[in-house]
Amino acid sequence: MKTISENACFGGTQGVYSHASAVCQCDMTFGLFLPAEAKDGPVPVLWYLSGLTCTHENAMTKAGAQVWAAEHGIALVFPDTSPRGEDVADDEAYDLGKGAGFYVNATQTPWAPHFQMWDYIAEELPKLLGKNFALDMERQGITGHSMGGHGALTLAMNLPGRFLSVSAFAPIANPTASDWGRKQLTAYLGEETAKWAKHDATLLMQETDFDGPILIDQGASDQFLDLLMPEALAGAIAAKRQQGTFRMQPGYDHSYFFVASFIEDHVAFHADALYAG
Amino acid sequence: MKTISENACFGGTQGVYSHASAVCQCDMTFGLFLPAEAKDGPVPVLWYLSGLTCTHENAMTKAGAQVWAAEHGIALVFPDTSPRGEDVADDEAYDLGKGAGFYVNATQTPWAPHFQMWDYIAEELPKLLGKNFALDMERQGITGHSMGGHGALTLAMNLPGRFLSVSAFAPIANPTASDWGRKQLTAYLGEETAKWAKHDATLLMQETDFDGPILIDQGASDQFLDLLMPEALAGAIAAKRQQGTFRMQPGYDHSYFFVASFIEDHVAFHADALYAG
Repeated sequence: MKTISENACFGGTQGVYSHASAVCQCDMTFGLFLPAEAKDGPVPVLWYLSGLTCTHENAMTKAGAQVWAAEHGIALVFPDTSPRGEDVADDEAYDLGKGAGFYVNATQTPWAPHFQMWDYIAEELPKLLGKNFALDMERQGITGHSMGGHGALTLAMNLPGRFLSVSAFAPIANPTASDWGRKQLTAYLGEETAKWAKHDATLLMQETDFDGPILIDQGASDQFLDLLMPEALAGAIAAKRQQGTFRMQPGYDHSYFFVASFIEDHVAFHADALYAG
Repeated sequence: MKTISENACFGGTQGVYSHASAVCQCDMTFGLFLPAEAKDGPVPVLWYLSGLTCTHENAMTKAGAQVWAAEHGIALVFPDTSPRGEDVADDEAYDLGKGAGFYVNATQTPWAPHFQMWDYIAEELPKLLGKNFALDMERQGITGHSMGGHGALTLAMNLPGRFLSVSAFAPIANPTASDWGRKQLTAYLGEETAKWAKHDATLLMQETDFDGPILIDQGASDQFLDLLMPEALAGAIAAKRQQGTFRMQPGYDHSYFFVASFIEDHVAFHADALYAG
């Protein structure tokens, strides 16, 4: 593991690190905010999965999460959204290839060798973090924005017991029924739609629900509402009687200004769950 | 004036606007955060002047100031740091020309026609803002980072009565004695050093002081300490018995992580002054 940068931040440290990923077969970079409390021992962890076109850096610099993570003594992990490097396949479209890993393990050419973001987030990166930093991996929460909200919800529901809480900002809520989903799931997983189901938060909610609290914020003026399909997930949550809160926020769009406006609530929501145990 | 974008943000609006600047003889862009209170009438204004290489956008997206401005019901103005456009002179160095206006009125070739950032910030932009937005121009404070801290301090001290409070993050504190200053003041104002004095916060403090409170934060691990020369200004403030607080912050560097870590204090500091009247 290599330290790219470390900056003092709200009494703790905002770091950026890279490492050779066996899973993605390339070097991967991630951001990690450690609050001051990490100097004295392991702290709970909140994952932040980012959306299309993002790297590890966007949320780390624009979401304004560190101030609240510092207040609650929680670490923040900011992974990248895809494999990177010259020999990694890409596409001209912004929503396929680099910056658009969709948090799945690709099985199709040309994506299969490197695009293994599910295993990277679910297996490899947690092991690396637990080994190298003062993090309590028994106390993890996960959140994300847009494609990252999709990732957070699908990881949380597919890995029972892993995350004590899950939240999302404007998640891609029903990708098997959306142009933000069908295109990528076909490219990465092939045309057999049965293999898509575990990567659709709405379908998962109908099937398995989540053993903990959920918080979702969605801007009512989001320019991508037709692609996100929040109504499908909101309906599924209500139908399943899932413990959770879905908030439709008037006037807000899809930007980081929306995320920043409500990140305080999300960090506090996760802190409640992470410190309850 | 043209609206580039408006995003809902902490109950208010983060806007970006452009306009034809008569002073700079080019189109200029600025960011403006209006808190919810601006819907009901004029609100106080806090200027944020940015540092070398920045546009109007950096602090607007990375400083995390809006959350606190919303809490206090204060507007935030994020001007650009230089004139822009194809016919505007530039230099290969990052610290001269575009992105490096240094908040002076250039008198020298090739900078003179466009590089009039002093008049732009002191005269043209305030008039435009007061005319077009619900801003109480009788209640203004000013802050800034690095070159912008230099701008904030020199504007505040040269315009008695204009700003009720001034603060700075890691300001270029003594530019007439620094390589961040001598080079640019020579290029923009010529070699006659008497003309530089009004653009040096330390020299101004020795001469005129500021009729209000000052707050300065400086990171002790700032990689540019030799260029910033905080000791000169801290000494001058103490020698002048100027009302003010100078804080040396252990471990912090020159980054936006430093700015974000202390912006809450700065907004609260200005709010105290802006609401005292």
